[in-house]
Amino acid sequence: MATVEELKLRVRELENELIKCKQKQCAMEDAQHQELHRPKIDKMSAEVVDSNPYSRLMALKRMGIVNDYEKIRTFTVAVVGVGGVGSVTAEMLTRCGIGKLILFDYDKVELANMNRLFFQPHQAGLSKVEAAEHTLRKINPDVSFEIHNYNITTMENFTHFMERVSYGGLDEGKPVDLILSCVDNFEARMAINTACNELGQIWMESGVSENAVSGHIQLIIPGETACFACAPPLVVAANIDEKTLKREGVCAASLPTTMGVVAGILVQNVLKYLLKFGTVSYYLGYNAMQDFFPTMIMRANPQCNDRYCRIQQEEYKKKEAERPKVEVVQEEEEEVVHEDNDWGIELVSEITDTELEAASGTVPDLPEGITVAYTIPAEQNTAGGETVGETEQSLEDLMAQMRKL
Amino acid sequence: MATVEELKLRVRELENELIKCKQKQCAMEDAQHQELHRPKIDKMSAEVVDSNPYSRLMALKRMGIVNDYEKIRTFTVAVVGVGGVGSVTAEMLTRCGIGKLILFDYDKVELANMNRLFFQPHQAGLSKVEAAEHTLRKINPDVSFEIHNYNITTMENFTHFMERVSYGGLDEGKPVDLILSCVDNFEARMAINTACNELGQIWMESGVSENAVSGHIQLIIPGETACFACAPPLVVAANIDEKTLKREGVCAASLPTTMGVVAGILVQNVLKYLLKFGTVSYYLGYNAMQDFFPTMIMRANPQCNDRYCRIQQEEYKKKEAERPKVEVVQEEEEEVVHEDNDWGIELVSEITDTELEAASGTVPDLPEGITVAYTIPAEQNTAGGETVGETEQSLEDLMAQMRKL
Repeated sequence: MATVEELKLRVRELENELIKCKQKQCAMEDAQHQELHRPKIDKMSAEVVDSNPYSRLMALKRMGIVNDYEKIRTFTVAVVGVGGVGSVTAEMLTRCGIGKLILFDYDKVELANMNRLFFQPHQAGLSKVEAAEHTLRKINPDVSFEIHNYNITTMENFTHFMERVSYGGLDEGKPVDLILSCVDNFEARMAINTACNELGQIWMESGVSENAVSGHIQLIIPGETACFACAPPLVVAANIDEKTLKREGVCAASLPTTMGVVAGILVQNVLKYLLKFGTVSYYLGYNAMQDFFPTMIMRANPQCNDRYCRIQQEEYKKKEAERPKVEVVQEEEEEVVHEDNDWGIELVSEITDTELEAASGTVPDLPEGITVAYTIPAEQNTAGGETVGETEQSLEDLMAQMRKL
Repeated sequence: MATVEELKLRVRELENELIKCKQKQCAMEDAQHQELHRPKIDKMSAEVVDSNPYSRLMALKRMGIVNDYEKIRTFTVAVVGVGGVGSVTAEMLTRCGIGKLILFDYDKVELANMNRLFFQPHQAGLSKVEAAEHTLRKINPDVSFEIHNYNITTMENFTHFMERVSYGGLDEGKPVDLILSCVDNFEARMAINTACNELGQIWMESGVSENAVSGHIQLIIPGETACFACAPPLVVAANIDEKTLKREGVCAASLPTTMGVVAGILVQNVLKYLLKFGTVSYYLGYNAMQDFFPTMIMRANPQCNDRYCRIQQEEYKKKEAERPKVEVVQEEEEEVVHEDNDWGIELVSEITDTELEAASGTVPDLPEGITVAYTIPAEQNTAGGETVGETEQSLEDLMAQMRKL
């Protein structure tokens, strides 16, 4: 039988132990909390101190590269697909101090994603957009984040996607400044293309081949440059037998290097476009096997199957006609369309004419090393000897399906 | 005065509270612990399941890109400099499943580094190598890590650095397979160059310009290609007035995009070199303003100031002479050295002859868009009108200083 004194002693012991336990718990929570946040910064400063996360970006002004770096805080960018390219794209924009990011992805993080940058093993099982927001907010709490954990290609979600890119800008009610396509499939690219044509929304496409050793980025200005329905999407060939890429049910290869390079050239193009410096690329390919980086531009196709693309082309023509003509040279430039060119593609390539002539000769005429990515969309994949003419048909089918949604 | 019953009740209450507190603490510790580790994996598997972190890498075999991907686990790579390029380089190699990484850096993480990938705000104040190891081990516990928190250019550390790259391979006692230079200064590059010439160690150089919009990677094979003392280091010019870059005390600009691209093309070159696929680049530049990616090769300079470089050149010549001559064409190729070329540089460029002729004309003759990075090393920076001749002198001085160490 315990005495009162013994019990009092026990109470004191327990009270002390409890205080210690709670103190430790607080410290752990504090540490977790500290990991989560640095204080927000109201105004970007160019001050050269170790504690300023923006000093090396504001230095771009002093170096004469960018006139008004702070303007980056006024822009909203939507990233569709937060995988190997999209997650790194979002991280780069976050670290650059973009105003707002809207992320779309329906997928979950898996250990099988760990061969690419950004996600970590402890995030396996979380939705990609949630995991990404958590990490990105820790990295830069000055950025606004909006996440949508759904597939944009279903009817209901597509309507919501259109609504958010139309009104989800930093000042609610304004459209986003740019949409970036970082998806890995044809349907999602077509959905973004359909939305952007209807809205007249400028966007950039990106892609990495299934053999992991080539990729590309592409700037699409509705009415001005080829949309995704004007011409089949392009890839940089890597001297690989195409047949090895097309086998169904085969797990695609991927590398953090190729995806990091594609995200890097994509966000570089975004920065050049938004902050107005350097030359914005219309198309930049990356062939990792030969370290070959082709560039070119493709004009919109007047026979494009997308009605809104054709409408945008008319509006672009009107605007161009209204513009005071200063240089005659520019008018001539618009005539450079290949005569036997079903796709109405105009090439303004960095590579030489000899190289162009040696190009692999399929329609559309493409610079050496670039081929169409999807000659045969998924289900029609069984028949041999497909031509690009047949592909045109398939594109129509797919777009009809898209509109039915 | 409390009764025995009251005290007993209090003891029970406190005991319950303490249990709850300890349970919560355990859960928090478990969560922290879970964040730290996924179980190690003995053997890389190609099985296509969500839980396999190597499935997308092993798919490179099925895609016909790499013959023996598992071989990556046998290699050791040393990364010198764990900043904007080095940290991403280490992360890519970690995610690719490299056998062992040895990291060298003397610096601490600062908030001012947050405009580049990899480090996070809560790591500010930690040493870069410690913070990097912590994150990388979480990402892939199968990789062996060895970190050194010191400046390799001091005499004592240089000796230790030489020792570790000579004997720090995965099988202790063997040399590393490759050294990657991801440093941001001339002295550190010269130290790596000196070590590699003496050891006959193959290495790769990387660099990003102070205006953040150009960069390069370079493969250096002692005796075969130009070492860092054979010719001044090169950069890709970005149409920027060089004078804006050279002002002293000015905080350099940096971008996550440019550094991500440079790390990507560096590790891609490492993978191609180690796993024997594609074409390994001797020099690959990146001009972000124009999306221009020049490639070329520079042969070793017989008049190089580095004694060990000249010895390696002799050994390379002997080896080449002993090799059975199958192709006569190759012999001729070795004669392509410019006659008025003080640096003995041989260009094998991907760009056209016209472009080559239009090159900016300084010695050494370089393809358009590439210039020497350091025409005037730091302290001689005051006098105007320096020529490359004077630079040669400065290089000698610097190397003499280096040898004194």
